[in-house]
Amino acid sequence: MTPAFVALDWGTTSFRAYLVGRDGAVLETRADAGGILSITDGAFEATFDAHVAGWDVGLPVLASGMITSRQGWIEVPYAPAPAGLDELAGAVRRVRTLSGREVFFVPGVSYRGASRAPDVIRGEETQILGAADAGDGLFVTRGTHCKWIEVAGGRIVRFATFMTGELFAVLKEHSILGRLMTDSEVGSGGFAQGLATGLRQTDGGGLLHALFSVRTLGLFGDIPGDQLASYLSGLLLGAEIAGARTMFKPGDKPITIIGAAALAEPFARALALAGITSQPGPADAVVRGLAQIGKSTGLIT
Amino acid sequence: MTPAFVALDWGTTSFRAYLVGRDGAVLETRADAGGILSITDGAFEATFDAHVAGWDVGLPVLASGMITSRQGWIEVPYAPAPAGLDELAGAVRRVRTLSGREVFFVPGVSYRGASRAPDVIRGEETQILGAADAGDGLFVTRGTHCKWIEVAGGRIVRFATFMTGELFAVLKEHSILGRLMTDSEVGSGGFAQGLATGLRQTDGGGLLHALFSVRTLGLFGDIPGDQLASYLSGLLLGAEIAGARTMFKPGDKPITIIGAAALAEPFARALALAGITSQPGPADAVVRGLAQIGKSTGLIT
Repeated sequence: MTPAFVALDWGTTSFRAYLVGRDGAVLETRADAGGILSITDGAFEATFDAHVAGWDVGLPVLASGMITSRQGWIEVPYAPAPAGLDELAGAVRRVRTLSGREVFFVPGVSYRGASRAPDVIRGEETQILGAADAGDGLFVTRGTHCKWIEVAGGRIVRFATFMTGELFAVLKEHSILGRLMTDSEVGSGGFAQGLATGLRQTDGGGLLHALFSVRTLGLFGDIPGDQLASYLSGLLLGAEIAGARTMFKPGDKPITIIGAAALAEPFARALALAGITSQPGPADAVVRGLAQIGKSTGLIT
Repeated sequence: MTPAFVALDWGTTSFRAYLVGRDGAVLETRADAGGILSITDGAFEATFDAHVAGWDVGLPVLASGMITSRQGWIEVPYAPAPAGLDELAGAVRRVRTLSGREVFFVPGVSYRGASRAPDVIRGEETQILGAADAGDGLFVTRGTHCKWIEVAGGRIVRFATFMTGELFAVLKEHSILGRLMTDSEVGSGGFAQGLATGLRQTDGGGLLHALFSVRTLGLFGDIPGDQLASYLSGLLLGAEIAGARTMFKPGDKPITIIGAAALAEPFARALALAGITSQPGPADAVVRGLAQIGKSTGLIT
């Protein structure tokens, strides 16, 4: 099949470039852990060129993710919500590389609710476009930072970031809570108990108090050490769901979950235990979203 | 003045020994940062003997803090709440050192509310005895972990731990939130704004969402980098107060705050902004508490 464009998903800790056919099929993938944090001296162009060596320089490149941030290749200002395909496509920035490739950078989206701090996404807006088959409703992306995103009339109207993944990592690695943990995998035994604690934490002293139960349940032997990381994971997911529920009031329509299965699966389980239905989004949401922007701007015909 | 006993406050990250007179006055102090975590091969006795060299070996030594924990010199099981002077004095454990000193170790206290994880204090129970002049009511100790402790009928009846101090430290040092922080001191500018956000976080998505505002307010320049640590500090204090308020429902009687001024002062300010009155507890609460136990057990006459 003839390639139609290159999709670039370059984030904080990973690089992914896809050679994509006219029908959206991925023909070839070049990926590694070389996220933008690993790039020194701003060598984005050289790094990119090396990764996609051999791919037709005449193909348009569509890029999203943290590569379009202040720490990335070129900073594209956030498009304010509400934002959909038209707003995102209209704000794309073009760069021509020395090797002659045309790279089109997709903006992130900012949201500022009444009397609230601003919130931002960068990369997730493209995934949402790619999951548009799900229609309007709630979408949740899983990762270091998790985003609850509400889509109405085909546009992103509001969203909120939850630092669940990062908090789990720093507490496990750097706080006293990690000391007793011996889990070989997260998601077993203590998970459901942690989730129940997290879901009800707002009436029981809040998260800063609930977290200490990871320590005491381990100390007293109520939860064995090899289930404590699972307990913490469940507790944080419960706290996230309790908080997001007050903001977004999910109805009967299933929430669409976007992200790698290792993160999406426990979250779907947590939602189910909280009585909220969900469905998986497409695994290739980024490629689909970039294809939509490419078609909308006439770059892909 | 004739010394009456030695008070030992040996915690996770600090060592403090006091030579105390019959009237409770501290005659001499030996203190350094050699907390129990710095002791290798269980060399507690030798380390202690070296610190108090020259002090009369005939004086009783009264000890509290993490030195009485599983990671300390000798583990004294927790006394279950409700616990007051009688319960604590009755559970003291005696050790005779090779050098001939008699050391009396004070237990910590455990609390297990209905359908809750257990909670523990170790060292704070002695401070509470030492602050008994305040009468019944709410006491809050400030440190890496903060304890809200309710005293009724002269006994500790329930309490809750909040990981506020530790969370501040790990988020500042190890998470993305610390990246934009340039504060030379914490407690200025952004503090009140952070506090307001923390106090209302339960209706706005919860703490896992509110924390991300540290990042976005910095990114958008709404709060300058040199006020961001203050903002985070206020936010976490607000979240603690919001959570503790639902548990303890503080009334008109001032909360007694126990801890070093650098930690107690911002907390008192936070309580005031939240409409809760407070008063400082005695700076020598540990020495006072150990003296009470010594008198109750006949060790100090």
